[in-house]
Formats: sequence, C-alpha cells, structure tokens
Amino acid sequence: MSQPLPSLEVCLSPALLHLFHTKNTITVIIDVFRATSTIVAALDNGATKVIPVSTVEECIALGKAIPNSITAGERDGKVADGLQYGNSPSEYPVSFVKGRSLVLTTTNGTRLLHMVNEASEIITGSFPNLTAVCDFLVQQNKNVLLACASWKDRFNLEDALFAGAVAQKVAEHFTINCDSARACMSLDSDAKGNYFEYLKRGAHYKRLSGYGLESDMIYCTTPDIHPVVPILKGNELLIHS
Amino acid sequence: MSQPLPSLEVCLSPALLHLFHTKNTITVIIDVFRATSTIVAALDNGATKVIPVSTVEECIALGKAIPNSITAGERDGKVADGLQYGNSPSEYPVSFVKGRSLVLTTTNGTRLLHMVNEASEIITGSFPNLTAVCDFLVQQNKNVLLACASWKDRFNLEDALFAGAVAQKVAEHFTINCDSARACMSLDSDAKGNYFEYLKRGAHYKRLSGYGLESDMIYCTTPDIHPVVPILKGNELLIHS
Repeated sequence: MSQPLPSLEVCLSPALLHLFHTKNTITVIIDVFRATSTIVAALDNGATKVIPVSTVEECIALGKAIPNSITAGERDGKVADGLQYGNSPSEYPVSFVKGRSLVLTTTNGTRLLHMVNEASEIITGSFPNLTAVCDFLVQQNKNVLLACASWKDRFNLEDALFAGAVAQKVAEHFTINCDSARACMSLDSDAKGNYFEYLKRGAHYKRLSGYGLESDMIYCTTPDIHPVVPILKGNELLIHS
Repeated sequence: MSQPLPSLEVCLSPALLHLFHTKNTITVIIDVFRATSTIVAALDNGATKVIPVSTVEECIALGKAIPNSITAGERDGKVADGLQYGNSPSEYPVSFVKGRSLVLTTTNGTRLLHMVNEASEIITGSFPNLTAVCDFLVQQNKNVLLACASWKDRFNLEDALFAGAVAQKVAEHFTINCDSARACMSLDSDAKGNYFEYLKRGAHYKRLSGYGLESDMIYCTTPDIHPVVPILKGNELLIHS
C-alpha cells in the first residue's frame, strides 16, 4: 500500500494559528508586502544572513553587536527612527548587501515567525521564490502549514493569494482537506497568473501606492526572480542548501 | 456632492470578530450548513418565530415554557438527547411548522449571533434567501458586516462562498475596501453559480455526506427557494416585513 500523502493547510491570520498543529510541520511564513520578499531578495543577493526582530530597539542593539551589519525596518511606510534602511526589496542589490548581515524589524511577519517556534522547519515565502518554495515542500514530504502574516491579524489578499499559488502548484503531492487552502486556490484561479493586477483590488495596494510604493509591489509579485529558500536556523534566516 | 456609499465587510471567523465594527452596522449571520438555511426554511414555511439558543438545556427549558413549540438541534450530526428534531431544513415543511415556534440550538451560528449584539440589525442569510438578503441590504443603505459562523472558529468554504455571492450582487451599492470580501468574491467567481458542485471540495461536504446529508447540502445551496429575511427582535427571529 502506498503511504498517505502529507497534509497541506493554510492559516489565514495569526489570530487563527491556535487552530492548527505546527509541531512536526514545515511552516511557511508569508508576508508578501514586503517582509518575506525583502528577506529573499537580500539573501539571494548575497547577504550572509537576515535576522528578523520584533522591535526597533532590538534592531539597533543587534546592529551594534554584529560587525558589517545593516539595520532596517519601517513603521507606517517610513524608515523607523534610529534605523538605516527600509523594507523595500529593491534597497538590497548585490552591490550593497553582499557579505553583510541584515537585521530587519517587521511587525506582522516577525511576530508570526516567533509564534510558530514548534515547527520542524520554518521557511519564508513570497512570489520572488514561489517555485523554490514549492520544490522544497515537495522534496521534504512532510505536513505543511502555509501561514499568512496578514496585517494586524486582519486577513489580507496578497498573502492568501501566494498561499493559493503554492497550494495549486503542489496539490498532487499533498492531501488538502483544509477549506482555507481551497479558498486560496480559488484566488489563484481568479488571478490567472496576473498577481499584481489581481492585487490592485486589495487594501494594501491602496495603502502602499499612497506611499509611492507601486514598484515595490511589482517586485514582490514577480515570480521566481530570487529562486532560493530562506530557512530559520536559531534566530537567523539563511539560504537552504 | 453625492453621499459616500456605505461599507461592506466580511468577517471570516468569530475569532476575528474583534477586528470589525458591529455597532450601527447591519450584521448578516451566515451558517449555510445548516442553521441559517433551516431558520429561513422554517419561517418561510409558516413558523411564527425561531428562537436560537446556545445549549440543549436552554432548548428543553424554553420548549416547555412556550406553547405549541418544537425543540430542535443536533450534536455531531444527530438529534441531541432530549430534543425532538434535527437541524435539517427539510424537516420543517408547512404541514409541520405552520403556526408553531421553533426553539433551535446550534453551536456556531447561535454563538456568533450572541457576539454581535451591538449591531443595529441582525439578520440571517443562506443561499435559500440570497436575493432577499441582497435586496434588504441595498434598501437599508447602511454599513454591512457579513459574518461567517464558520466551524469552531475555523474558516469554512460554504459561509465564505455565500458572503462572496452577496458581495458580488450588491457591489455597486457599497464601498468594498475589505480583503476578506474581495477573496470571497473570487470564490463566487470560481463557483460560477454552481454552489453545490463548488462546495464538494470543502471539508463540510465530506463530514456531512458521511452522515448521509447530501440532500441537505443541496437544499442549503439552492438559491431563493425561501425569499424572506429572518431578523432578530429581542431573542426571536421573525420574518422582516
């Protein structure tokens, strides 16, 4: 008899995380606009590691302690006081980040990352590493939880759309008995591969384009431009090899 | 200048309800499988009122206190001990319910109904009264929250699909700056009007068809067979007139 397929589930908000098993599960942290897009951009462009932290204070302290580091993070769409750089993936080209450590504070993504600490592996996903994430999940052959960072616990369209794109691509390798996953797959069907266009109907499009960040959103929704998998080791995100 | 349109939002789970304003808002309680389908069937078939209660004990006590009443409710797909009838809409034809009061205990739907007690009006919705609900919302011209009862706080596909069907039909009359609503509208697009077929991918289809309740699900997903709006007055659901 063949082995049953591992399960794939989607958690639409950190406020629902208690309803899911994260133990012995690969958890994919999804924060498309923009934390998990920026993380994969920095690592693929040569950063030695990304250290996600919750507060600006921690970010400043770690930045002082770690040689050749960059401190980054935004609050309300602006570089936070005391930090050097923002949360835009395009701020981290090879010429800038190669060989350096990025200490990044984000609100939603980092919080979720710390909430799932029982997971067997924690990786991060966004459109720039869509296929790399899918390939990793299929190879591992374990239960998967796609965990949307959302926006202050409110469901958001971009994280759910990415979860749907992953679920759709790996569906034949998993048992999907999770209505959230099925709903996300409908988002993916409705988007027909035009992720950025689809997300123009979302609340974040309005907020971020108000900050002049439309080009960031195009970057964050472009598939497979950074085909690597950031994986958490201790408190550091590194490229899975 | 024209008045701004009222807002329409969707709450995907009672565990997310704290993120929404329910005050001065029309709240639509959605529990497609099967509470809000059964409620509208009973009222449209002539029940004088439906009294939703949380526990089997309350249901029995009220049933004794109210003349000509029926006590009903299920736990795990079976009529609960001490009650007379179940939670199937087809159990309440005109010949049975006309002129009687239905005291109904449900887990998810009733709990949510008691959570939104600040709303200006509370109505119930499901596919059997889809168009009636839409017409009511457009006429009222107030902010709307479509509140999915879900299943023990877990997102479910059928309530979200109904929310999407409503949002799609009334979209031009409301401002929809809510990602949950947008996602539900994608479910409705993906379903292409074949609600029952679409929901075969959902977890509830598997659970309820395991109890032999496929015909109930067909009933609950058939649009506009009970074109009335149940509205909460005190602790009683009555037909809005």
